[in-house]
Amino acid sequence: MGVSKKEIRIGMIGYQFMGKAHSHAYRDLPFYFDPKLKPVLKVVSGRNESAVSEAAEKMGWESYELDWRKVIERDDIDVVDIVTPNHTHAEIAIAAAEAGKHIITEKPLALTLDEARQMYEAVKKNKVKHMICHNYRFAPAVQVAKKLIEDGRIGKIYHFRANYLQDFIMDPEFPLVWRLKKEVSGSGSLGDIGAHSIDLARFLVGEFDEVVGTMETFIKERPIGEMAGGLSAKSDKSTLGEVTVDDAVTFIARFESGTLGTFEATRFAGGNRNKNKFEINGEKGSIRWDMENMNNLEVYIADDEPGLQGFRLINCTEEVHPYAGAYWPPGHIIGYEHTFIHLIYEFFNGIADNQQPAPNFEDGVKNQQVLTAIEESSKSKRWVKVSDF
Amino acid sequence: MGVSKKEIRIGMIGYQFMGKAHSHAYRDLPFYFDPKLKPVLKVVSGRNESAVSEAAEKMGWESYELDWRKVIERDDIDVVDIVTPNHTHAEIAIAAAEAGKHIITEKPLALTLDEARQMYEAVKKNKVKHMICHNYRFAPAVQVAKKLIEDGRIGKIYHFRANYLQDFIMDPEFPLVWRLKKEVSGSGSLGDIGAHSIDLARFLVGEFDEVVGTMETFIKERPIGEMAGGLSAKSDKSTLGEVTVDDAVTFIARFESGTLGTFEATRFAGGNRNKNKFEINGEKGSIRWDMENMNNLEVYIADDEPGLQGFRLINCTEEVHPYAGAYWPPGHIIGYEHTFIHLIYEFFNGIADNQQPAPNFEDGVKNQQVLTAIEESSKSKRWVKVSDF
Amino acid sequence: MGVSKKEIRIGMIGYQFMGKAHSHAYRDLPFYFDPKLKPVLKVVSGRNESAVSEAAEKMGWESYELDWRKVIERDDIDVVDIVTPNHTHAEIAIAAAEAGKHIITEKPLALTLDEARQMYEAVKKNKVKHMICHNYRFAPAVQVAKKLIEDGRIGKIYHFRANYLQDFIMDPEFPLVWRLKKEVSGSGSLGDIGAHSIDLARFLVGEFDEVVGTMETFIKERPIGEMAGGLSAKSDKSTLGEVTVDDAVTFIARFESGTLGTFEATRFAGGNRNKNKFEINGEKGSIRWDMENMNNLEVYIADDEPGLQGFRLINCTEEVHPYAGAYWPPGHIIGYEHTFIHLIYEFFNGIADNQQPAPNFEDGVKNQQVLTAIEESSKSKRWVKVSDF
Amino acid sequence: MGVSKKEIRIGMIGYQFMGKAHSHAYRDLPFYFDPKLKPVLKVVSGRNESAVSEAAEKMGWESYELDWRKVIERDDIDVVDIVTPNHTHAEIAIAAAEAGKHIITEKPLALTLDEARQMYEAVKKNKVKHMICHNYRFAPAVQVAKKLIEDGRIGKIYHFRANYLQDFIMDPEFPLVWRLKKEVSGSGSLGDIGAHSIDLARFLVGEFDEVVGTMETFIKERPIGEMAGGLSAKSDKSTLGEVTVDDAVTFIARFESGTLGTFEATRFAGGNRNKNKFEINGEKGSIRWDMENMNNLEVYIADDEPGLQGFRLINCTEEVHPYAGAYWPPGHIIGYEHTFIHLIYEFFNGIADNQQPAPNFEDGVKNQQVLTAIEESSKSKRWVKVSDF
Repeated sequence: MGVSKKEIRIGMIGYQFMGKAHSHAYRDLPFYFDPKLKPVLKVVSGRNESAVSEAAEKMGWESYELDWRKVIERDDIDVVDIVTPNHTHAEIAIAAAEAGKHIITEKPLALTLDEARQMYEAVKKNKVKHMICHNYRFAPAVQVAKKLIEDGRIGKIYHFRANYLQDFIMDPEFPLVWRLKKEVSGSGSLGDIGAHSIDLARFLVGEFDEVVGTMETFIKERPIGEMAGGLSAKSDKSTLGEVTVDDAVTFIARFESGTLGTFEATRFAGGNRNKNKFEINGEKGSIRWDMENMNNLEVYIADDEPGLQGFRLINCTEEVHPYAGAYWPPGHIIGYEHTFIHLIYEFFNGIADNQQPAPNFEDGVKNQQVLTAIEESSKSKRWVKVSDF
Repeated sequence: MGVSKKEIRIGMIGYQFMGKAHSHAYRDLPFYFDPKLKPVLKVVSGRNESAVSEAAEKMGWESYELDWRKVIERDDIDVVDIVTPNHTHAEIAIAAAEAGKHIITEKPLALTLDEARQMYEAVKKNKVKHMICHNYRFAPAVQVAKKLIEDGRIGKIYHFRANYLQDFIMDPEFPLVWRLKKEVSGSGSLGDIGAHSIDLARFLVGEFDEVVGTMETFIKERPIGEMAGGLSAKSDKSTLGEVTVDDAVTFIARFESGTLGTFEATRFAGGNRNKNKFEINGEKGSIRWDMENMNNLEVYIADDEPGLQGFRLINCTEEVHPYAGAYWPPGHIIGYEHTFIHLIYEFFNGIADNQQPAPNFEDGVKNQQVLTAIEESSKSKRWVKVSDF
Repeated sequence: MGVSKKEIRIGMIGYQFMGKAHSHAYRDLPFYFDPKLKPVLKVVSGRNESAVSEAAEKMGWESYELDWRKVIERDDIDVVDIVTPNHTHAEIAIAAAEAGKHIITEKPLALTLDEARQMYEAVKKNKVKHMICHNYRFAPAVQVAKKLIEDGRIGKIYHFRANYLQDFIMDPEFPLVWRLKKEVSGSGSLGDIGAHSIDLARFLVGEFDEVVGTMETFIKERPIGEMAGGLSAKSDKSTLGEVTVDDAVTFIARFESGTLGTFEATRFAGGNRNKNKFEINGEKGSIRWDMENMNNLEVYIADDEPGLQGFRLINCTEEVHPYAGAYWPPGHIIGYEHTFIHLIYEFFNGIADNQQPAPNFEDGVKNQQVLTAIEESSKSKRWVKVSDF
Repeated sequence: MGVSKKEIRIGMIGYQFMGKAHSHAYRDLPFYFDPKLKPVLKVVSGRNESAVSEAAEKMGWESYELDWRKVIERDDIDVVDIVTPNHTHAEIAIAAAEAGKHIITEKPLALTLDEARQMYEAVKKNKVKHMICHNYRFAPAVQVAKKLIEDGRIGKIYHFRANYLQDFIMDPEFPLVWRLKKEVSGSGSLGDIGAHSIDLARFLVGEFDEVVGTMETFIKERPIGEMAGGLSAKSDKSTLGEVTVDDAVTFIARFESGTLGTFEATRFAGGNRNKNKFEINGEKGSIRWDMENMNNLEVYIADDEPGLQGFRLINCTEEVHPYAGAYWPPGHIIGYEHTFIHLIYEFFNGIADNQQPAPNFEDGVKNQQVLTAIEESSKSKRWVKVSDF
């Protein structure tokens, strides 16, 4: 059988939770969609040979490297995918940009706003395409929300409220993994999950004007466990180490549009495994979405006829809904992993068409500005202008 | 048939929305419960004779007065019930206290914190019983939540988040009713509905330490309509007047217990007719409640067996649930009006037993402190200590 | 204050669960609505003097009688309200009709179809007004459903499915109360709760054509307790008696309209305290309702625009919704007891206007025909034409 | 990189909706799980060369054949996967069995019970492993339900009620596709979706004893469109053809265990895209599941402490839940397609271990017995013993 679609060859740095999500998306993309470039899983890198070789085998990568620099040096790589802990993003991305590779990276973009800006400069200077994995934008239901807003169906937006609630570190015996160390992760719930809510807000409502928030670490010390990636790890109870990031953050915001925002991101909301939800109230309608039922969008349309007004529960699995037509008949739901397929689809088509897709490093920088402003406001106990950073 | 239960004679000042809710509660109380005092609906007062006489007839009051002072002067009145607009609460309450009447009043307690404190001084000095109508405490489901917390079933509380969302003034043609004028109502969504969320937070979590928030008036001018009470009114489009209260407020808080709070009160949340909801996340469990399904409480218990953990949807209509046994068999739900019956029940029993029930004027003062701190923080754009007021 | 509205004087036979619901409705009706006749709670009857006198006092009846015949003989009674166990309905109703009293009775109409028909003949012959308490018709949300259907908004109805699920007798120690004895109650879940689903089906879809069903008694013997009314009773474990009614019934139906029906009524559905729900699927739309959230109606409108189709969750608490305007602002929910207020409102207005309201004894007869056909089909194990009875 | 896991080579007959679901499962299986055999997508067959070659390319099959017999003749095929319309299952499966291939087929097993039995005989005689794709068993939440029942946590089961509601053919212009012709599909909603509910019932409750049901075709004639597979097709309005299968079926059942069953399967339930739901009520607990929120299971446990009883909403995405640990952290949901991965996993492990997994052709036969009994009861209008067929 003849295949002549142009290939795009990927080198992935890292192979844990996000590496798995990305690898799967590369594999599934051509099955469901017809992207302009066909992904080839060329090489994955990691420092632990037995682990990285096993991951390569399991996830379908052609080869592996022990040093990420080798991946960047390789001529047979078009895209560098960065799924390592946050403190490594900048160095890798800048090197990849200088090597002329297109770049896709996990969020948050970097440890600091400075780093983030350097990364963005690097990709602009080297004229490569870039993307940051705010995958939740790509749930079909969120795309429907976006379209409603763009089409003026919601009108002026008065309120945006978002919670991102998890509970996986509530046990004080949960160990001090890298996500709990500031020097590796930058921040805690703020940058890990709050950043997703901030991205959804920017996507749907526009830019933040000012913020005020407060961060809290409920459990200050934890057993020192293995520091490598992954959400779970065995703990060594004999020694405790300091948690240097926030367990929770709550903040309020004003957007340039005049919208009021209310946000909360926490890993201490028992019973909420991964409740990433938002609500929008506008002049002409309201929208509600919750990742735990990600296929549904709730939409209220103010000019529905009197007596029959109410939130509509829309199962966004029909051909008319973005991306949904590629899968199954209506009502046959998709899941978390599919959001990555859609993101990669847009990335590859952007590369093919020489168009820069979003969210990209510019979005990453703007997101990091908001993160920085929140951290600053948590210290100064004042409202902070996002544009001051 | 012989009846010898001691009566308690009520004089109600005002007769609109809240007057209706209170009147109904007095009528229904002895039907469902066995309070220690039997209410007698003695007199209702209002300035418009045809309206107040019609209200008296409709709601079952024995007589009416056109001047509220007459009510307070009457010897056959034990309790004065204040359901007039907010700016009148202080004068009436202080006069009633000095006349030795027990007092029940709608919330917020007063226009200002100063007034509120004077009211509280007056009831203390005159040794009368007092109550403020934060009725939502008395939903059976909220009482179940309270008991779970008191029994240590939730553990240390990390998060309290509350929304009180309405949409009844979103239409710019909605007139400038008294609730939209600061000199009559004190504030807008903040004191009207935000005060309820604050009360629930104080009831369930404890005292506020500090707050920061922001208030917004989305529609600055509205048609001048009739200024008398009531939520709806006909508008006169020819003249516009200034809206002098907030349409929406969003704020975050820290409690003395270390709990983080996130709050939003708005009248601009389309599709939310009266969504008064809160969520609590604690060390050992979580709780969710929503007034629109007020008979249900959602409870997550962290030490439920692995694999079977999840929010329980508890229909609080069983005999084991507070107040619920007085009504119908399990599953036959009650509504908004019943919360007032429970509140009045506690008030009358408190009077009979010479015990001061809650929420009372002290709660009203503390609530008003929080309201004041939020208003101040909205101006100063800083966190504000509640104890500074 | 002058009142000159014509009174309607009620004598109620029985005073347990349903007596309480009816008494409350009489008391509340003039508070919320403006019926053409003003109810006077004249007399209640029961055989146990201390119990009936206490009930009279508690529920606000002017007097009591120990013999129901006395109530019927009294000249100062316009309406006889029958809330006694089912086996007494016929005798009382026929006597009341012959005495020229209007009659309202609990469901099911009678023990047998023969009795039911005699009752219907009696009210017709004596030209009195009559009503049967299928109260669920009168939930505002159900009225909205009715109007949608009548207005052609649902189109041809393909499916009606109803469950009425309870769990109050699942404990084998629950005693042999009157509801579990065929000679007193006629049937079990079939006539007690299945009859409600049948009434809702007749109200919304039309007449049944044929049915086939099966009845089951999961617990065949129970402790003999007090046989008097009431849903709960203390059990005497020493002696067991036979349960002679069905614990559960499931049946399917064809309606004259061609609609297919699926029904289930059971007292053995753990966790379902009083789940009375139905769904309708029609050519142009679908409807869902559940008594446990009785203020809401879910409506799907097939010609909503593509991409935004979904069930609307309509909170039927607005002025535009039937009966709802008499209560509170939108979003402030009502409960079970209010359905009785609406039913009584229609009954009294019917009497005042000399119009026969529904549901009435004719509906009771037709309902009993369906009950009889189901019982027969459960025995014969065949489809049974309802018109054969 | 060295790989030495034993391969299992698949030949798939057909390539439409179900072919896509199966192909995806083969691709994803080794990515997420560690099955004992590694699938190789060897060959796919179809009669339309351009379509089958495109499908092979898109879905990752190594080659294609135009005649299904070629697939069976090939030595390099271990498993034959049948995803063609129902009328072809028997011939293909019997040929495959005789060629010694393991067989997996879509449901229903065959057009008729006779065919189904011949198929089962063939696989038994030729000692090959066999499976039928009742994929919904393999939702993690359904597996949790199964385990609860097996562990005695639900006790004796009183009720099983299931709806399978779709709406994709409600438009009278929807064409006469193969699923609407009895000679190709055997039956309509009964065998297509009702068969899934029957399988879930057999899996969770046990064998059916007797049934009575009724089938209906609401739209008797439809435009003749393309008859090939697929759920959607363009219609040619000029000619109408007869719909020879049921649009809807509703039936009740008694199980050998004494459980009462209520079932409905329809393609005429507007707003329900693919609502496959069931409820179980047992002595000690209840269970609810709905495919539209397939990651959740609702469980009621009767001996939960009084006052805190209620359905738990369990998000079955934790490591402790069957299959879920292979995917993402808790709360990151999976979708429809994953049920097929789990089914294939069990099939391949069964082959590797020489153990016959379920559901298999025996289940297919028993399912078809129930389908046959329902069809017969719809004609005879009587209860029918399943064992009579």
